[in-house]
Amino acid sequence: MKKIIHGLLATFLTAAIFYPTSTMAQQSDATQPADLKMPTLEDLIPGGETYRFTENLYGVQWWGDVCIKPGIDSLFTINPKNRKETLLITRAQVNENALVTPTAGGQGNTNGSILQHFYNVEFPWADKPYMLIKKGKTYIVHDVEKNDIVKVYSQAEKNNGANIDFTPQGGHIAYTVKNNLYVDDKQVTNEPEGIVCGQSVHRNEFGIYKGTFWSPKGNLLAFYRMDESMVTSYPLVDITQRIGTIDAIRYPMAGMTSHQVTVGIYNPATGKTIYLDAGDPKDRYFTNISWSPDEKSLFLIELNRDQNHSKLCRYDVETGKLMGVLYEETHEKYVEPQNPIVFLPWDDTQFIYQSQRDGYNHLYLFSVDKLAGAAEQEGASALAAPRQLTKGEWLVRDILGFNAKKKEVIISATKESPLQSNTYKVNVKSGKITLLDNGQGVHNVQLSASGTYLIDNFSTPDVPRAINLVSTASGGANPRRIFTAEDPFKGLVMPTVETGTLKAADGKTDLYWRMLKPRDFDPTKKYPVIVYVYGGPHAQMITANWMYTARGWDLYMANKGYIMFTLDNRGSANRGLEFENCTFRHLGIEEGKDQVKGIEYLKSLPYVDANRIGVHGWSFGGHMTTALMLRYPEIFKVGVAGGPVIDWKYYEVMYGERYMDTPEQNPDGYQATDLKQQAGNLEGHLLIIHDDHDDTCVPQHTLSFMKACVDARTYPDLFIYPGHKHNVMGRDRVHLHEKITRYFEDYLR
Amino acid sequence: MKKIIHGLLATFLTAAIFYPTSTMAQQSDATQPADLKMPTLEDLIPGGETYRFTENLYGVQWWGDVCIKPGIDSLFTINPKNRKETLLITRAQVNENALVTPTAGGQGNTNGSILQHFYNVEFPWADKPYMLIKKGKTYIVHDVEKNDIVKVYSQAEKNNGANIDFTPQGGHIAYTVKNNLYVDDKQVTNEPEGIVCGQSVHRNEFGIYKGTFWSPKGNLLAFYRMDESMVTSYPLVDITQRIGTIDAIRYPMAGMTSHQVTVGIYNPATGKTIYLDAGDPKDRYFTNISWSPDEKSLFLIELNRDQNHSKLCRYDVETGKLMGVLYEETHEKYVEPQNPIVFLPWDDTQFIYQSQRDGYNHLYLFSVDKLAGAAEQEGASALAAPRQLTKGEWLVRDILGFNAKKKEVIISATKESPLQSNTYKVNVKSGKITLLDNGQGVHNVQLSASGTYLIDNFSTPDVPRAINLVSTASGGANPRRIFTAEDPFKGLVMPTVETGTLKAADGKTDLYWRMLKPRDFDPTKKYPVIVYVYGGPHAQMITANWMYTARGWDLYMANKGYIMFTLDNRGSANRGLEFENCTFRHLGIEEGKDQVKGIEYLKSLPYVDANRIGVHGWSFGGHMTTALMLRYPEIFKVGVAGGPVIDWKYYEVMYGERYMDTPEQNPDGYQATDLKQQAGNLEGHLLIIHDDHDDTCVPQHTLSFMKACVDARTYPDLFIYPGHKHNVMGRDRVHLHEKITRYFEDYLR
Repeated sequence: MKKIIHGLLATFLTAAIFYPTSTMAQQSDATQPADLKMPTLEDLIPGGETYRFTENLYGVQWWGDVCIKPGIDSLFTINPKNRKETLLITRAQVNENALVTPTAGGQGNTNGSILQHFYNVEFPWADKPYMLIKKGKTYIVHDVEKNDIVKVYSQAEKNNGANIDFTPQGGHIAYTVKNNLYVDDKQVTNEPEGIVCGQSVHRNEFGIYKGTFWSPKGNLLAFYRMDESMVTSYPLVDITQRIGTIDAIRYPMAGMTSHQVTVGIYNPATGKTIYLDAGDPKDRYFTNISWSPDEKSLFLIELNRDQNHSKLCRYDVETGKLMGVLYEETHEKYVEPQNPIVFLPWDDTQFIYQSQRDGYNHLYLFSVDKLAGAAEQEGASALAAPRQLTKGEWLVRDILGFNAKKKEVIISATKESPLQSNTYKVNVKSGKITLLDNGQGVHNVQLSASGTYLIDNFSTPDVPRAINLVSTASGGANPRRIFTAEDPFKGLVMPTVETGTLKAADGKTDLYWRMLKPRDFDPTKKYPVIVYVYGGPHAQMITANWMYTARGWDLYMANKGYIMFTLDNRGSANRGLEFENCTFRHLGIEEGKDQVKGIEYLKSLPYVDANRIGVHGWSFGGHMTTALMLRYPEIFKVGVAGGPVIDWKYYEVMYGERYMDTPEQNPDGYQATDLKQQAGNLEGHLLIIHDDHDDTCVPQHTLSFMKACVDARTYPDLFIYPGHKHNVMGRDRVHLHEKITRYFEDYLR
Repeated sequence: MKKIIHGLLATFLTAAIFYPTSTMAQQSDATQPADLKMPTLEDLIPGGETYRFTENLYGVQWWGDVCIKPGIDSLFTINPKNRKETLLITRAQVNENALVTPTAGGQGNTNGSILQHFYNVEFPWADKPYMLIKKGKTYIVHDVEKNDIVKVYSQAEKNNGANIDFTPQGGHIAYTVKNNLYVDDKQVTNEPEGIVCGQSVHRNEFGIYKGTFWSPKGNLLAFYRMDESMVTSYPLVDITQRIGTIDAIRYPMAGMTSHQVTVGIYNPATGKTIYLDAGDPKDRYFTNISWSPDEKSLFLIELNRDQNHSKLCRYDVETGKLMGVLYEETHEKYVEPQNPIVFLPWDDTQFIYQSQRDGYNHLYLFSVDKLAGAAEQEGASALAAPRQLTKGEWLVRDILGFNAKKKEVIISATKESPLQSNTYKVNVKSGKITLLDNGQGVHNVQLSASGTYLIDNFSTPDVPRAINLVSTASGGANPRRIFTAEDPFKGLVMPTVETGTLKAADGKTDLYWRMLKPRDFDPTKKYPVIVYVYGGPHAQMITANWMYTARGWDLYMANKGYIMFTLDNRGSANRGLEFENCTFRHLGIEEGKDQVKGIEYLKSLPYVDANRIGVHGWSFGGHMTTALMLRYPEIFKVGVAGGPVIDWKYYEVMYGERYMDTPEQNPDGYQATDLKQQAGNLEGHLLIIHDDHDDTCVPQHTLSFMKACVDARTYPDLFIYPGHKHNVMGRDRVHLHEKITRYFEDYLR
């Protein structure tokens, strides 16, 4: 790892003070700080009335290899070769025409005006002049050349459907009504309450985020069916009703009976549905559904309940029978498949599989042909060793697509730095990897149909956002800038942002930290510190985004005179398997030791008041906050924990058991991480905030902790936001942060 | 009222400083305050480990006209004439004999030792040498002369019954199992879930506290049957289960569909049950059940849902038919029958009815005979005008019994002072009323079988508790002291207690207040004040008990340097109908105006810091606390409200509609008293505490207020005690008061 870290060390080892461009610019403009306005929470918190978000080009996308740039009144194309903008169509034209020929398809009602702006139109047909307009739940196919409506899909609107999944290739629309699946006008499933079809399963773990999967040509629909009838309900109470009512959620807690998932395939042409013959679904996870290009096979990555053995399975779409197990992976801790396989567009016999098997998520090339002999042997790993396409102490974050002509796969990866996400092309034959962007920051990329161009939407610590059009052929040279966002904090007082690294509690691993200091920082003074912490898997708080991803509340509190500090401890994301899984079976403990290393660093700074250190976090960060207050009362004087996990046995099966096993398998680990057991250690001021509709981390966590503290005669504080789920969103998010602020002001000031 | 107040004015008009006897005694002993220990919450709060309760003679009672004085090992009799104590039996004797003849009745198992102490034995047979021993749910009749067991009633034990109601006269035992009624070994009712038999109904309003009523000779059992199946359930959540579960309670909210009650009569001899033919039970209250002495009639006071029209109804026990309406009472605001009729023991044709019809609760003598002609006329108030037995601007609190020989009814009343409860005999013929006690304090009295003697258990502001045996014949002269409690606070630092009166917001009504000052009070200093408030009907905070009923927490906070102040505003108990019902249809508003009068008085005192005034109360007092914080933010800086009513439409039908009518009838009143509407007025620090199993004032009140404050961008604080009901009891009550204390210390100090 040393070699790769090397570049980072240069960046971070000596803490680099970073002034946001806004204030730097104003300084060079000789603007006095007195001219700057002190930002309010309304300015800095999403949901605030004057929230300063970074500008963007909404709806920018590819239409084949032409870039589409939407506006309110007009839609432009941009030629990626020369950045030339051309008006494609106006809103007035679309709406005028829609009035004349209201519903070419004969279905649905477009109510005259069908467009209010172009920001959410889509161009999913690379080779057709068709624009997809979503008006409510009605999908309208519009020919931009003829300025005419081609077809209207109003079935989801008519049936008040949800989870709408339209296949541009097949021309079908799938959606759910309550717990059942519909396609076009037809009800596909007819299950009783307790069985859910066509929706995401396994609580969105394993990369799952939806429940319908159209085949490449749009002829078949694979879908999830989840039987939850055996899962215990958790009662959330809706107090906004005339008399409080129960909103029950099926919530399988660690070690308890979980739901059972099967996969169906529906054929709109025949109206027939088959289910994969995958055996007893009890205690199994069916993840990462993908289709073969010929639509004859369906691929799943199946996982046992222990989550330590995954199998890449291939099913015959016609019969539902297992054709073979293509690949298996085991790990003594856990395996976590999160990406479906992807076939090479130029070779239907080869696909890419992502695996952390060498310690970092990398690409592996598999050949289906070589599996022929193993087709009938269930459980056989008949595959010859796959070819590793990418390698190194960094990880692939995403496959963005392919350039079929050049036989390249385009990926985003952390090759430059664990804080960054850059874009690369990898030559599938040679393995040669080429950087396609500026090598800085975090890039969100859309690849054009042919793979020739990128829309490269990126930010860096000193660029709020910029968008380039990039040629993949030229290796990222001469990017054409089509958008540069203004500094969202222009005219506002901003703190300084620094980052750096320090050694983890294992004595060897480098950890990244971020520190915000008040703009008028005086090194001879003593400042209180608030540690903002998350600390759990799947997330990283410090990335090379604008201002190193400092949060609005961090900026606000730094302005108020706090030093704001965040450290990504071991167990957090994008640092590889070992970094993440060292927390296995005792979540929160190693993480806490690393946070203490951060505190040791802070205490070494002359301007830190070691007697005024606070901590704040939400969800896993709420667990961390509470755990730090209880395990290190001599360090942390004030904490605000939001939606915390208090006892992992109250958390759900999928996430919980991956990291903790079951309470029966790991009684000591559950005992050691159950914060109720340590309620008696509370010395400082701890405010716990929970939402009464938290269906991710149910209110039982916090309420049972309150009871434990009452039993132990300790004195936490509590607040509940009615009607919110796992976080406080929207307008109320400003209230939340004012509430948190007051707590620190009352007790840490 | 002036004439009666006169005596009180002498006592209270000039605020009398009161030093508890303990500290006075220690002063005269030349004990330095330095020798006194500062009491902790554990000393002062019920449930505390070292809680200082006032001693008592537990289980002292009458056996005919002989006084029984129980101990752990021995049971004594006391001759009331000469106070002579005689050993009746020892525990060893009872237990030894119980071993030899275990179960004379042949039923049940007494497990050898049947007595651990004598404190809860009873002597319900005035004319038999029988002692009733309750061992768990087994009732054992023991002959103290023969030292032998007469009979064992073990049916309730065997069936795990609740609500046990044993008739010494009839020798039957009634009890409930789940929602059904049992008598002896027989299941009397067989109703499905949602219908409850043999338990208290109408949420314990109208003086109802039980559901079974044995006839005078114990031959028949009247019982309540309540159909709740049409009542909406409120979901309380039990978070102590492995996964949170619902504890649903049937909770009819103001204006919503309420339960329906009927009255059954069971005859153990025939095994038959009849139900009173009272017509459609919808929106009616069936209250104050009582029997005629001959067991042939059952009397009920029936009330309409509006609670402004009551009827005393007589039913034929044989047929269940209405024999007549004996008396009706209406009031434009409400009538509130709370006492069943009581027949004169020397005349089966006459009974006493209690009514507030002249503005104060007084006794009225009715004659049944005169009703004969009206027997078949439903709705007729055929009764000749009843004779008013007691009269005056004071009220009868209770009928204690009769002296049949002298034709006297013995009552407790507030004739000496609204703060007191004294004992009187009233000659039924002449109406002559004679005080039977010392004319001070609050007396709890047991009358002997013949009515000749009283056990007079009392306290006064400077007597923690004493017990006298008093002869009713001698008019309370020469009471014989059988017990004097020690000062429970001996050796502890105690504040001073003062009381006085001030004028209500109506400019004329005298209100009583109580003030506690720190023992080291310095009139040149400025002290913060905490107002402890209840303010609702049915309760009075200031009575002439020991230390004027100052609460342990008040003592604690006064010791910490706060002035503790309480005022019984208009709307509170024991001051008559008009005093109480001036709050009709807008609860909390007049009450608040009176509390402001208290504040004006406080502000007139040079040692009160008007910028540091806080308020605390629970239940109605929680409503008052919240309302005062919102309506008078310029006065009240810190409040702690417990289990508050926030919106009367979330409160139950019986209590809520009596004072507020329904939301449909009184929309303006509900709007004006809905504290959510005023959430935006919150300026100071308000902590609201609620219990998650509060089935009296459901958590919806507090949670909906939190939402209203979030919407209004104001910042209350919140705490929840899991597992507790409408207050925090037991050991956790100390935690509660530490929590409350810290809040005031943080923000009002």
